[in-house]
Amino acid sequence: MTKVDMAAATCPVPLLETERVLLGHGSGGQLSAALIGTLLVPALGAAAPPGPLEDAAVVPVDGVDLVLSTDAYVVSPLFFAGGDIGMLAVNGTINDLAMRAAMPLGLAIAYVVEEGLAVDELRRVATSVGVAARAAGVPVVTGDTKVVGRGAADKIFVVSTGIGRRLAGAAPSAAGARPGDAVLLSGAIGRHGITVLSAREGLGFDTDVCSDTQPLHLLVEAMVAAGGHAVHALRDPTRGGLASALGEIAAASGVGVEIEDRAVPVPGPVAAACEMLGLDSAHVANEGCLVAFIAPERAEAVLAAMQARPEGREAVRIGTVVGEPGRVTVRTAMGSHRILDMLIGEQLPRIC
Amino acid sequence: MTKVDMAAATCPVPLLETERVLLGHGSGGQLSAALIGTLLVPALGAAAPPGPLEDAAVVPVDGVDLVLSTDAYVVSPLFFAGGDIGMLAVNGTINDLAMRAAMPLGLAIAYVVEEGLAVDELRRVATSVGVAARAAGVPVVTGDTKVVGRGAADKIFVVSTGIGRRLAGAAPSAAGARPGDAVLLSGAIGRHGITVLSAREGLGFDTDVCSDTQPLHLLVEAMVAAGGHAVHALRDPTRGGLASALGEIAAASGVGVEIEDRAVPVPGPVAAACEMLGLDSAHVANEGCLVAFIAPERAEAVLAAMQARPEGREAVRIGTVVGEPGRVTVRTAMGSHRILDMLIGEQLPRIC
Repeated sequence: MTKVDMAAATCPVPLLETERVLLGHGSGGQLSAALIGTLLVPALGAAAPPGPLEDAAVVPVDGVDLVLSTDAYVVSPLFFAGGDIGMLAVNGTINDLAMRAAMPLGLAIAYVVEEGLAVDELRRVATSVGVAARAAGVPVVTGDTKVVGRGAADKIFVVSTGIGRRLAGAAPSAAGARPGDAVLLSGAIGRHGITVLSAREGLGFDTDVCSDTQPLHLLVEAMVAAGGHAVHALRDPTRGGLASALGEIAAASGVGVEIEDRAVPVPGPVAAACEMLGLDSAHVANEGCLVAFIAPERAEAVLAAMQARPEGREAVRIGTVVGEPGRVTVRTAMGSHRILDMLIGEQLPRIC
Repeated sequence: MTKVDMAAATCPVPLLETERVLLGHGSGGQLSAALIGTLLVPALGAAAPPGPLEDAAVVPVDGVDLVLSTDAYVVSPLFFAGGDIGMLAVNGTINDLAMRAAMPLGLAIAYVVEEGLAVDELRRVATSVGVAARAAGVPVVTGDTKVVGRGAADKIFVVSTGIGRRLAGAAPSAAGARPGDAVLLSGAIGRHGITVLSAREGLGFDTDVCSDTQPLHLLVEAMVAAGGHAVHALRDPTRGGLASALGEIAAASGVGVEIEDRAVPVPGPVAAACEMLGLDSAHVANEGCLVAFIAPERAEAVLAAMQARPEGREAVRIGTVVGEPGRVTVRTAMGSHRILDMLIGEQLPRIC
């Protein structure tokens, strides 16, 4: 396994020395970090956001901490076991707000539709947006629809943007992890990625596993109620999986992370699929779980609060903030350590 | 010219009796209204926004009227005289906020990029986003980037979402126009649409005309300072042009609108291009002007305030709120009247 320095992963200039955009630039891994860090953010100049890159931005307005987050959904296929692009777009953006401890106030939904898409498919996606939004208790307040010619898009893309208000008494940030923090994981990993892979490639895992897509804001609300400012950092391990989520927080916070291999819950069918395909489950995308960095004195209370919610029933402690800054290590069942690297390029394009 | 009842245009069910999405469903005209009114909004169920569909939604938070707007930009070509997709994405969303009298607080930018796009083109677009945001004084606070395979998108789409705060002392709404209101237009029409058409088709108008893309929030601020609650309704006539903007306000407000053909400023090259191509300039897209419905007693003051700003230097009064509810009529130079219909389908796909 290649040894990678996480602290350097936020600005690995050589990775962008290509003349063309690659699929890996959208992977959520190191190539994504390179594209964002060396091109997209510098291009903004003084209009760029200050501080570390987060799942969502805090915009203070008259003493209220508003939170804004946007995500483009390009998943293929549109429909898969346990969800579809519309449900992902709603839950994913709610979760990005939740990672800043923000409760959602409203969503804006933009569709880019390919000419010739079946009206019934569009209706199915739009209905799913509505069902997911109602289930989460969040109104869709505005939207936009563009249609492009045949071949200029692949069926439909959905861009959802959410506005939320940060809970009083918590300010989690990717830069907030501290030495000694407990690292908690809210549920089993790998289900979303394996489900989409199976649906796309016809691998037949779909009878055993379905996407974990679900909104996590009420889980976060319970965690903040139990832990307050001890909730240092939250991240949902989507593209790039658990490895990217941990690596990004390690880099942004300037801390090391050590996790126990045995402690990370991986469902049997996910483990089997990863084994067969040669994937590391820590690189597989999720859409309904989170990792949390919690001050040690409140870790037990926060874990108990997580387990008391349906979204966090399987929550476990998987590790500790310790070791060389910027580095994520895994302690294996045999007691040895290995570096957990972030995905470099693309494991599976269009996973979300 | 077909006689069309604007009041009915918000829900013309038969227009959606097609099995496939058509380019015209993204036109901003009647097919768009049908798609939104009969499919997209009903699909949301109880999660749908209440009231008339606006350029941006008001979300009250702790006594502050926040405004949220999202727009997907799919313009082709990416670069044209006077602007590009990045500049459009910034200015367009600022303008949608401004139409609710909101000053922008921050932008979220999502890119959907086709694998193989030249990194230099991506840099040019991202730089343009930064330049436009700085020029308007609005930070880009967050973003997202997805890459899809070759052929799954056409180069790059940009989705921008803006959050703003409504100015105290004004609450313009598409439903706010009242009988007797003066109808003001901030500048000449047709430049953006003719520029993009020319760039795409190589028609050679581009030496004479360039896109009018510009941010309008400071113009609106000046108008509100001069007119306050007399500023009843604002709309920027983008897709579907002046005709759609007037038609939508007439329908949402339940009023008639009469405009003077001679009063509407159309630049010579735009008029010549429309003549040659058989287009009505009132259907051609704009990206840097607005129509305003102002209570008569404040109309002169608001017009003067507009003319005092560079964006409103050419501002004129073009008509009055009068006549049959839901109908927009044009008084010709000869003194006769004709109905100004909304575009039904697509005049020019991917104009913004």
